[in-house]
Amino acid sequence: MPHKQKLILITNDDSIYANGIKSLVQMAKTFARVVVVAPDKPQSGMGHAITLNHPIRIQSVSMLDGVEAFSTSGTPVDCVKLAIYEVLKAKPDLILSGINHGENSSSNVLYSGTMSAAIEGAMEGVPSIGISLSNYDNDANFNQYESWVSDIISKALTDGLPEHTCLNVNIPNVPGKDIKGLKVCHQAHAFWEDRFDKRLDQFGRPYFWLTGAFSEKSDDKGSDLYALTRGYISIVPTTFDLTNYAVLNQLNTWNI
Amino acid sequence: MPHKQKLILITNDDSIYANGIKSLVQMAKTFARVVVVAPDKPQSGMGHAITLNHPIRIQSVSMLDGVEAFSTSGTPVDCVKLAIYEVLKAKPDLILSGINHGENSSSNVLYSGTMSAAIEGAMEGVPSIGISLSNYDNDANFNQYESWVSDIISKALTDGLPEHTCLNVNIPNVPGKDIKGLKVCHQAHAFWEDRFDKRLDQFGRPYFWLTGAFSEKSDDKGSDLYALTRGYISIVPTTFDLTNYAVLNQLNTWNI
Repeated sequence: MPHKQKLILITNDDSIYANGIKSLVQMAKTFARVVVVAPDKPQSGMGHAITLNHPIRIQSVSMLDGVEAFSTSGTPVDCVKLAIYEVLKAKPDLILSGINHGENSSSNVLYSGTMSAAIEGAMEGVPSIGISLSNYDNDANFNQYESWVSDIISKALTDGLPEHTCLNVNIPNVPGKDIKGLKVCHQAHAFWEDRFDKRLDQFGRPYFWLTGAFSEKSDDKGSDLYALTRGYISIVPTTFDLTNYAVLNQLNTWNI
Repeated sequence: MPHKQKLILITNDDSIYANGIKSLVQMAKTFARVVVVAPDKPQSGMGHAITLNHPIRIQSVSMLDGVEAFSTSGTPVDCVKLAIYEVLKAKPDLILSGINHGENSSSNVLYSGTMSAAIEGAMEGVPSIGISLSNYDNDANFNQYESWVSDIISKALTDGLPEHTCLNVNIPNVPGKDIKGLKVCHQAHAFWEDRFDKRLDQFGRPYFWLTGAFSEKSDDKGSDLYALTRGYISIVPTTFDLTNYAVLNQLNTWNI
C-alpha cells in the first residue's frame, strides 16, 4: 500500500447506489483514502451538463466499510465541482468515474456523464479516469477485472497523466481471465443511427422516445472499438480542447 | 439569393422564444428555406445531454413571417436528432445554433447546449455553426452583426466545412461597426474558478448555487479569448473527436 496518504475522489453517472461504483470504491481504497461524491439518481446521457437554474443538494450517505460518501442532486460534472470546492475543499490526487454500466467508447464519450466527470477533472488539472464496462446489467460482475483496474489506478497515482488529458477506459464484455491486455487507442468515428419511437398518449398526442442502433464500424485498427471487439481493454487519452488543429490553416483561406 | 432551394435548420439553447434565435432566423431566411426546432425552455449549461428516461414532446409554434417552427421538451442535442429524424426526415444543408445570449469561447464549448447542438450536427455529417454574442441581455442588439453572420452563413452554404468539424463563432460585445474582422483561432485554455453559494432553506438545510469567475487568461495569441478581447469575431474549428493524439505514443510507454 504505497499510496496510503493519497486521496481519490470517486463519482459516476449511474448513481451512488449502482453496483459499478461500489466495486470501484472497493478497488480504489487499497491505494488511498477514498471520498465518494456521486449523483442521487441515474444521470446517464447527461454529457457535460451543469446545474445553473436549480439549487443543488448534498447528503451524507453510508457506504461500504465506512467510506466517506455523499449523494448530490446534481449532474456528474456538478459532483466533481462540489467535491473539490465544498466537500474536500482541495483537489484530490486522482478522480475515478465509474465503473459505468455500459460502454462509453467512440462518440459515446460526448453523451456520457461518466466521461464528462473525468473531462471536468482534467479541466481542474487533476489526473482523471473514466472506466466503463460493455455490459448494461445491474448485476454485472465488475470484480473479475480488478487486477486490470488496479494496475491503471496504481500507474496513474504514481506517474500522473499527460497534461490536459484524462483517460477513457473501456472494458469489453468478456470474462476477466480472457482479457487480452490494454491498448492505447484513438476514439473511433462511429455514431448512433438515431431513431425515435413515436407513440400516442392517452389524449392522442404524440410523444417520442430516443432509440437507435450504434453503427460499429470497427475496421479502423487504432480505434477503441477495434480493440474492444478483439478482447482488449481500450484506453483513449481524452482532452477538453475540441479545436480541430488540422484544419486551422484550411479555414484561414476563407477570406471573408 | 443564390441558395433559395437549400434548407437550414436552426436551434439554440436559450429556447425558441429568445431574441437571439429570432435574429438568426431573420438573417438565415434570405439564403434558404429555414426550419426551426428548438427547446421550449432555457437549456443553458446542458452540454451534450440527451433525454433517455423521459418521452420528448414536439409542438408547432408560430414564428415570424410564417417560418416553420417547432418547440420541443428536449435538450439542444435532442432537437438536432428530432429535427433530422422526425421533423425534416432528411439532413439539412446547414445547421445554425444560436445566436446565444452569452459567450461560448474557450472551455465553455463543453458546457454550452448551443455548441453541443452544432457538434451533434457535425457528428451527423452536416455543416454546423454555433454562434454566440458576449452579451447576456435579453434585449441585446443582434442585428448590428448581420453582415458578419451573413458572410459566414453564405460561405458555409457555398463551400461546406472541413470534415468532422463544426464552427464555434463568438462575437465580442462591441458595437457592430467596431468589429475588427474574423479570426480563425484555437480554443483558449481558460477555465471557471468555481465557487458555490451555500444557503440554508426554510428547514435549516443547506443548498448550493453554482457560481464562480471565469479566468480570462487571454495572452495566448492564437486563442479565441485573445481575438475577442481585441474586437475580433473568433472562429474555432471544433471537432467531436476528443482524442489527444499528441500523447498517444507517450501513453504507449506505460507498459502495464
